[in-house]
Amino acid sequence: MKTVTLTMPLDMHVHLRDAEMLNTVAPLTSYSFSGALVMPNLVPPVKTVEDVRGYRHRIKVAMESDDFEPYMTLFYQNYSRDFLISIQDEITAVKLYPSGVTTNSEGGVESFDIESMRETLEAMAELGIVLCVHGETNGFVMDREAEFMSVYEMLAQNFPKLKIVMEHITTREAVEMLDRYENLYATITVHHLMITLDDVAGGMLRPHLFCKPIAKRPHDRDALLKIVLEAHPKVMFGSDSAPHPRHAKESCGCGAGVFTAPIALQLLCAIFDEHDKLENLQAFVSDNAQRIYGICAEYKEVVLVEHDFVVPQMYGSIVPMMAGETLKWSIERVD
Amino acid sequence: MKTVTLTMPLDMHVHLRDAEMLNTVAPLTSYSFSGALVMPNLVPPVKTVEDVRGYRHRIKVAMESDDFEPYMTLFYQNYSRDFLISIQDEITAVKLYPSGVTTNSEGGVESFDIESMRETLEAMAELGIVLCVHGETNGFVMDREAEFMSVYEMLAQNFPKLKIVMEHITTREAVEMLDRYENLYATITVHHLMITLDDVAGGMLRPHLFCKPIAKRPHDRDALLKIVLEAHPKVMFGSDSAPHPRHAKESCGCGAGVFTAPIALQLLCAIFDEHDKLENLQAFVSDNAQRIYGICAEYKEVVLVEHDFVVPQMYGSIVPMMAGETLKWSIERVD
Repeated sequence: MKTVTLTMPLDMHVHLRDAEMLNTVAPLTSYSFSGALVMPNLVPPVKTVEDVRGYRHRIKVAMESDDFEPYMTLFYQNYSRDFLISIQDEITAVKLYPSGVTTNSEGGVESFDIESMRETLEAMAELGIVLCVHGETNGFVMDREAEFMSVYEMLAQNFPKLKIVMEHITTREAVEMLDRYENLYATITVHHLMITLDDVAGGMLRPHLFCKPIAKRPHDRDALLKIVLEAHPKVMFGSDSAPHPRHAKESCGCGAGVFTAPIALQLLCAIFDEHDKLENLQAFVSDNAQRIYGICAEYKEVVLVEHDFVVPQMYGSIVPMMAGETLKWSIERVD
Repeated sequence: MKTVTLTMPLDMHVHLRDAEMLNTVAPLTSYSFSGALVMPNLVPPVKTVEDVRGYRHRIKVAMESDDFEPYMTLFYQNYSRDFLISIQDEITAVKLYPSGVTTNSEGGVESFDIESMRETLEAMAELGIVLCVHGETNGFVMDREAEFMSVYEMLAQNFPKLKIVMEHITTREAVEMLDRYENLYATITVHHLMITLDDVAGGMLRPHLFCKPIAKRPHDRDALLKIVLEAHPKVMFGSDSAPHPRHAKESCGCGAGVFTAPIALQLLCAIFDEHDKLENLQAFVSDNAQRIYGICAEYKEVVLVEHDFVVPQMYGSIVPMMAGETLKWSIERVD
């Protein structure tokens, strides 16, 4: 039976939420990952030293293991250099949301006025704080990410020393952008390697596959798959696992987010194995992120084995992706 | 206060379902329409004289009014000329579904082999039976209708005396096809005049706006609106009103269909009024269909008035489009 040992897997984009939901999902991520970059879009968002410390403490309490590091992020607004100096040791990145483009992004950036952002972004570059970006405009849903490429170009050109991560990219356009600027990087989810809009809305409408950015066309998925399977050195795994309680997904207005945290490594093994690229999985789920972020992750080994795993129907109140379906790989043990 | 009197409004594409659902929805259509072309995709589909007579009888019992005519359709398969002669007085059209493209279409056409279809389609042309087509391929969801245009061309060219209705068109490509062949016509729903994919999946995911064909891009909606507002002589109103019980819409796999039967005329008044084209509404909702189909509809006058109407949250087990929202026009009376 085939086995794979992953050392120090990292999820460089995860939503752990807060309160009861945090208590449900944090242990699922901390079980199989050495660390995760935790998104700051709580209500209200994480914006102060106290917010970061308080949220980090709640995560540590919830996660039920000591060998996991939550890499904290701030919700982007224009911050002073002095503030960023004071907080630099407690955060890994600042996450920028254009206003209104996704869950709890209402307080995000209204317009990309480079001059007003200059102090913040130059200080971040100087201090080695990464800028993570949800790259979508408010345009037509299938065009939002491609339309955002000009913003990435503007940011990359104006702040060449700033590391910019295009989060959860979903399009061929974003893949093509990656090599155009030295300081652009990307995360890619596991679900965007698997589904297109056809899976969300081509047969039945499937709310548990509805996310932002929405899954795109087959040629987009193929472009993502290509750079992931070759473990392109600027690409990292970020699950964008985003739990909602079942009643908020199966309703007259369903929130955006796919919950993959507890099945992500199993799915990635299956995908890499199917394409005979298992040797590149370690770079995609850990090495690239450690190098790009300068992270020295908590030591952990996750042993996966080619053995059926039936995805539970629910984790607490959350319906995971592929609920009730059988995956070809399972986690044998975590050391 | 503005009023509009519509004489003999017709809904040239409606799903009345069967049994309990039929009893709920038939009176809502028969109240405000003189007649409706009733789709045959029951389980099992309407394919025989007995099926047609039985379904027509059940509709008449359910509809609670005498001044309404259900125009019956057969589910397309290859029928003999003799059979079509025997049934011609009891049906108005034959509805063709490519296999698997929408609700209860599993027994539809697998491939468009013109020669195997020739006897049926030539007999239909000879007997004045209209061919109604659900024009989608099994391709990527946003491309399915545009990809189907070559099938319409093949049918229109091979059977120039057959009247072919492109049902519920949603794209600029279908609008452009309309004038290319004399024997091509189209129905258009009210919801495709109002929404795009952004409304279905651009903000929250909204299952009650999920239908097949799925709503497309803004430029597609604009193209539909243009020919509808001018009451293009080859275009008819067909609601494609397609009820599902609420639990089947708000679930982990939501069926396709928007329920608009009881609000369609009010919405159309609002749309035509907003564009100062109320004078063209009569042609779109009745005159064009009577001329194209050679129908002499039951006499009915529906008086609408510019007065608020709050859409009920539910009709029986069905959530209508715009549940709980306020429309600007209401039905004052039906004579």
